[in-house]
Amino acid sequence: MKAVAFRRAVSADLPAIVALLADDPIGSGRESVGPKLDPCYTDAFAAIERDPNQLLAVAERDNRVVGVLQLSFIPGLTRRGLWRGQVEGVRVAAGERGGGTGRAFLEWAIDECRRRGCGLVQLTSDERRADAHRFYEALGFRATHRGYKLAL
Amino acid sequence: MKAVAFRRAVSADLPAIVALLADDPIGSGRESVGPKLDPCYTDAFAAIERDPNQLLAVAERDNRVVGVLQLSFIPGLTRRGLWRGQVEGVRVAAGERGGGTGRAFLEWAIDECRRRGCGLVQLTSDERRADAHRFYEALGFRATHRGYKLAL
Repeated sequence: MKAVAFRRAVSADLPAIVALLADDPIGSGRESVGPKLDPCYTDAFAAIERDPNQLLAVAERDNRVVGVLQLSFIPGLTRRGLWRGQVEGVRVAAGERGGGTGRAFLEWAIDECRRRGCGLVQLTSDERRADAHRFYEALGFRATHRGYKLAL
Repeated sequence: MKAVAFRRAVSADLPAIVALLADDPIGSGRESVGPKLDPCYTDAFAAIERDPNQLLAVAERDNRVVGVLQLSFIPGLTRRGLWRGQVEGVRVAAGERGGGTGRAFLEWAIDECRRRGCGLVQLTSDERRADAHRFYEALGFRATHRGYKLAL
């Protein structure tokens, strides 16, 4: 088995990424999967590509996408003009869990945030994801905040 | 007393905005205030201005800045390519609290997110801000997530 590699996603990765997003107990009902890629994802990918402060990344092993996450680099005034790196939509393929792939992927993401000058990395995790909470806490994240959402 | 108005911030608002950010029990120790505006804030303001997916907004009454918040419009693949509106750095002047200014400001911000095509508005609030939690819950936000932070 070859080593896992992390890189910026390209449009050819989209079907594999969407399959990963849908293969998740919480995410499954929120995605649109079928034999043909739903154009909502190609539109979203184009919007991410247009924004230099977004980085959609994949983990790849043996030419297969085995993980996905999105980084947003957010400028702001608070904390003396601190840039924040935000992690969203983290998914690791079922067969890769528990083997360190997720941890290595997040460490790579944190390094990217550091490289872009961020002073803080932030993410929110659904209250129901107890395994994810242990995972992020082992990486040094602290749950100091409540994550509020409002559907429009 | 004139009505409160909400608008995009301009650089001339920066000293008043920084004073608001510093006039906060949690934020005070994290900001840099003095007779001269710290260049870290002008740099941060320029970075916000350069990014079309950022909107720094102020609440104004009688030509005085009485509130500030930042909106980030974030494209993403999850939830069928949903755009998220994210609210960060919300501050309302002490003399304006409890009178509906904060609520009106957030409702204005939520409308901006809707206008920009977002399907979700999200924010995190420090666990210590009990008043803020009641405020966001009254606006319809639900604390479904944990907000994790990692200082770099």
